[in-house]
Amino acid sequence: MSRSQSRVAKHAELLTRWAVDIEAGDMVTIWAADSAKELVDALHAEIGKRRAEPVTVRASLDTTIGPSGSHIAEFLTSHDGEFDTPRHLRALMRETDVFVGIGATTNTNTLSHVSNEVQQRRAKAVGLIVGGVMEMEQAVFTPHPNNAWAQRAGMSLAEYEEFVYGTMFRDWERQDAKQERMRERLEAAEAARIVGPETDLTMSLDGMLAVNDVGDLNFPPGEVFTAPVVDSVDGEILFDTPSVLQGSEIVDVRLTLEEGVVTDYSARRNEAALESVLETDDGSSRFGEFGIGMNDDIGQITKQIALDEKLGGTVHLALGRAYDRTVGETREQNQSSIHFDLIKDMSDCRLELDGEVVHSGGELLIDTE
Amino acid sequence: MSRSQSRVAKHAELLTRWAVDIEAGDMVTIWAADSAKELVDALHAEIGKRRAEPVTVRASLDTTIGPSGSHIAEFLTSHDGEFDTPRHLRALMRETDVFVGIGATTNTNTLSHVSNEVQQRRAKAVGLIVGGVMEMEQAVFTPHPNNAWAQRAGMSLAEYEEFVYGTMFRDWERQDAKQERMRERLEAAEAARIVGPETDLTMSLDGMLAVNDVGDLNFPPGEVFTAPVVDSVDGEILFDTPSVLQGSEIVDVRLTLEEGVVTDYSARRNEAALESVLETDDGSSRFGEFGIGMNDDIGQITKQIALDEKLGGTVHLALGRAYDRTVGETREQNQSSIHFDLIKDMSDCRLELDGEVVHSGGELLIDTE
Repeated sequence: MSRSQSRVAKHAELLTRWAVDIEAGDMVTIWAADSAKELVDALHAEIGKRRAEPVTVRASLDTTIGPSGSHIAEFLTSHDGEFDTPRHLRALMRETDVFVGIGATTNTNTLSHVSNEVQQRRAKAVGLIVGGVMEMEQAVFTPHPNNAWAQRAGMSLAEYEEFVYGTMFRDWERQDAKQERMRERLEAAEAARIVGPETDLTMSLDGMLAVNDVGDLNFPPGEVFTAPVVDSVDGEILFDTPSVLQGSEIVDVRLTLEEGVVTDYSARRNEAALESVLETDDGSSRFGEFGIGMNDDIGQITKQIALDEKLGGTVHLALGRAYDRTVGETREQNQSSIHFDLIKDMSDCRLELDGEVVHSGGELLIDTE
Repeated sequence: MSRSQSRVAKHAELLTRWAVDIEAGDMVTIWAADSAKELVDALHAEIGKRRAEPVTVRASLDTTIGPSGSHIAEFLTSHDGEFDTPRHLRALMRETDVFVGIGATTNTNTLSHVSNEVQQRRAKAVGLIVGGVMEMEQAVFTPHPNNAWAQRAGMSLAEYEEFVYGTMFRDWERQDAKQERMRERLEAAEAARIVGPETDLTMSLDGMLAVNDVGDLNFPPGEVFTAPVVDSVDGEILFDTPSVLQGSEIVDVRLTLEEGVVTDYSARRNEAALESVLETDDGSSRFGEFGIGMNDDIGQITKQIALDEKLGGTVHLALGRAYDRTVGETREQNQSSIHFDLIKDMSDCRLELDGEVVHSGGELLIDTE
């Protein structure tokens, strides 16, 4: 077994043992775009060992989840835009116990010629399916390093593999304990405030629940997240880390919110893509998630959202759907067919919870050891 | 658009217009192994145009249908062999209106290290799903020419593409009319007899129905088929055309049947694979299909069963499941989780229907013009 094969095998083993727990008889759906053959093969070996049943699907899910393959570009550009819900895919997902989504595509700009409007309509048509995946007990999204992602990160494939596997193969039990202390602090908080250049945003967290993601949503994991009280977000915020939507880099997103709703927005690049996200539906101009990146092994932005949002020294807010598990019983869950993360580097900002500064100059100030 | 692209686009267009008829709102499942990216892309464009919903699946179906990808090899070799039925795949298929199966693999021997016993057990686990596909009104299997298939046929890719597309792009309405006359003759027949070297096989066709396949099962099409009365097949037959099961070439299959059941068998090569097919279940040692190849454009055996069985001048008998549409109301349908075609070159044989010679020296003797 070559070094590269053994890393892929270890990735598959960690996914099926740590990130999700596949048992005999489980129905497993793998969602993979073009270019994840090695990982799909390695997952099949793990799934076989565990006597579960795999089906690998290439389908058009929400395009905010991650770049798709060229087949989806063909489908979307030839379609008139009046989409049906794929009933057969829903039926498959209803019978699925474990979902593994693999971020891989042969070109991260594959959908860049598909209009924002069509992508928005498609997101609505598959919104129920995507929402279902977000609420599954056993679902994980993971990257498979390939040349397209390496290129976007400004690296060779060898460098990018070192980077990605370096973020995956570590002591997750220790990370679990560290994040758990942050989770408790975040869940106890009634209010949060982010302050910095062009940024002063307040939100209530009262009655919301915090989640310690150490592998049950993304692998590599490394964040603690909750949801703001829907109508409570007020103020302005600058996201100075680029967000990538189907290959469009949206740069320097500025949002103004009043009573939870985005009332003003701008972006230095690809503002139209941002506009299309905001206009998807009622819930897409509200925040459904507030998260704190706690994975110090990531170390740099590589324009792969699932990794970037875990980066230690950042926080993120997601437009759209809130995770059910973050919403307290007395609170309303923000509904949307999209969930789009915006990341903020905290190196010149501070985060206050109930008036106490817990994050400043990119460093967490609470004791997590 | 390059010549190669335009041929793939034409293939996709013919598939979705002639072989199946995809309408707005149809749920379409594409089943494809590794190596059919260009055709999957082109199908997505056609499906988008027609406002239907595509899902592409890579899953372990019956391995007698066609070679699988390496992921299935990983799954089968790591599994202990006590398979479940993939419920999620069944749910998907229940909601599927149109099925397109694409024969493509990066290596036609991909499963050759998987034991026959495991393949046989797997065939049983997915038997219901495969049976469901065989009975769908809108289902088609088609090859996508690639290097693996070209190599098996003893051709370069360029030669093989010429060959495959040459069998597809023709006047199917004329072929339809020609086959219809053979279908009427076959359906009217009460008994058939195949006579030649080491061959004298008789069967009753009384009460069975004949089907004119001009694109509703395979594309390219070109056969007329029925099913023998289950207990009626008697005698011996030599299949001198190789049959390929997951890369194993089974050569010179000799079968002896009494009252419909194989009582003796041999093969000059890979007899164990033949044995494993025969022992799958009760129905796998009986014939479920008798077909007559009528596509004169194919012209040669290329070890791709879906093409070989259509070759003008051949007949075929399939072990295992009978198609529902070939079984008359008063007759029993042979049930099995497999359907495995064996092909007979008729150049030194004759076929009699009710005592009349209708096929001799590889030529059809009835008027089909």
